[in-house]
Amino acid sequence: MKTRDRILQTSLQLFNQQGERLVTTNHIAQALGMSPGNLYYHFRNKQQIIAELFSQYQALVDGFLRVPEGRALEVADKTMYLESIFKSLWEFRFLHRDLEHLLNSDAQLAERYKAFSRRCVQSGQAIYQGMIDVGMLCADRTNAQALAVNSWLLMTGWVGFLCTSVLDDEQPELTPELLRRGVYQVLSQETGLLTEGVRSEVESMLQSYYVPLKV
Amino acid sequence: MKTRDRILQTSLQLFNQQGERLVTTNHIAQALGMSPGNLYYHFRNKQQIIAELFSQYQALVDGFLRVPEGRALEVADKTMYLESIFKSLWEFRFLHRDLEHLLNSDAQLAERYKAFSRRCVQSGQAIYQGMIDVGMLCADRTNAQALAVNSWLLMTGWVGFLCTSVLDDEQPELTPELLRRGVYQVLSQETGLLTEGVRSEVESMLQSYYVPLKV
Repeated sequence: MKTRDRILQTSLQLFNQQGERLVTTNHIAQALGMSPGNLYYHFRNKQQIIAELFSQYQALVDGFLRVPEGRALEVADKTMYLESIFKSLWEFRFLHRDLEHLLNSDAQLAERYKAFSRRCVQSGQAIYQGMIDVGMLCADRTNAQALAVNSWLLMTGWVGFLCTSVLDDEQPELTPELLRRGVYQVLSQETGLLTEGVRSEVESMLQSYYVPLKV
Repeated sequence: MKTRDRILQTSLQLFNQQGERLVTTNHIAQALGMSPGNLYYHFRNKQQIIAELFSQYQALVDGFLRVPEGRALEVADKTMYLESIFKSLWEFRFLHRDLEHLLNSDAQLAERYKAFSRRCVQSGQAIYQGMIDVGMLCADRTNAQALAVNSWLLMTGWVGFLCTSVLDDEQPELTPELLRRGVYQVLSQETGLLTEGVRSEVESMLQSYYVPLKV
C-alpha cells in the first residue's frame, strides 16, 4: 500500500476510535512509525487528511445512492441501499459524530458538504419516487421529497444521537449493532406506506435490522 | 425586568442572530449598555449563561411534551404539540445549531442533555402510544418507540440541516417559515399510519405546515 493510503487508513481508524478532535498529526505519524516530517510531505495538515477522507466517503455514498440504470427498482435493491447505508455510517462514523465542528473549521469542506447533502436528498427522492413508480410505496400517501429529507436527517443524525443520548457507562462505545438500529429507523418510516404486494417481504427485512435501543 | 433576566434575554437574541460562537460576554454587555464587570456579577462566564438558557429550553419542552392527565388524547392536542415544537425550535434555534460544540465544551451540560434527550424520547413514545390507544394511529403499523426516536432526531436535527444544507446566498438566514417546514417533516411521518377517522383532519393540519424546500 502506498504511504499516502496508509496515512489515510490509519487516520480513519484513529478518528473513528478516539474522535477526530483528540487525534493530532503527531499521533497519526506515531501510529504509523513514521516521522511527522514524512507525514507532512504527504499532507500539509489534519484538515487536508479530513478533506481526503470526506472525498472517499462522498464517492462511497454517490456510488450506491442512485436509481438503477435501464431497469425498474426491485425489492432486492432495498437490501443493497440499506446495507450500503449501514456500511458508510460505520466506516466513516467520525464524520457523522463531529460534522458540525468539521464544517465550522473548514469553509471549503462546508461548501462541498452542502452540495453533497443536496445531491443525496435529490437521489433519495429519485429512489423513493422509483419505489412509488413500481408500486412498492402507496402513491397517494408517499411524499418522496419529505421522505428523502427525513431519511437524510436520520442517517446523518444517527451517530450524533447515539453519542449524545444513548452511550453511557453501561454501553460506552459505538458498535455495529447500534448503527444497524439506525438503518431500522430509516426503513421503519415505510411501514405505513408499503403496498400489499411487498409488505411481508419488507417487514421481514425491517425485523432483520431490529436491535433493542435503551433510551 | 431584573438585570439577570435582561442578560439572558439579550444573550438569547444575540446567540440566535449571530451564532453562539461569535458572541462574547463583552458583546452581550455592550448590547445591554452595561459594564463587563456588572455582567460578571450575575454570570461567571458565557457557559453559565448557556446553561441557564438550556434550563429555560428544557422547562419549555418538558412543559408541553407529555400526555394530558386524566383524559385521552384528542386531535386538538396535536395542534398544541406541533405549535409548541415550532415555538421551541425557533426561540432556541442557537441551541440546535451548535449543540455538538456546546456539549463538547461542557461535560455537565452534556450529562443534563443526555437525561433530557432520553426523557423527550420517552415522552414522545407515550404520546404516540396515546394516539394508538385512542385509535388515531393504526396499532398494527405504528412502532411508538421508533416513531418517537425519529421525531426527536428530526426536531433536533432540523436547524442543523437548514444551516449546513439549505441556506445559501439566495436564502442566507433562518426564517420562521423554514422552521415550520421542520414541523411538516415531523407530522409527515404519520401519513401512512393515520386511521380513517382522523385522516382528513390531520392531512389538512399537515398542509398548513407545508413550506416549499429548495434542496
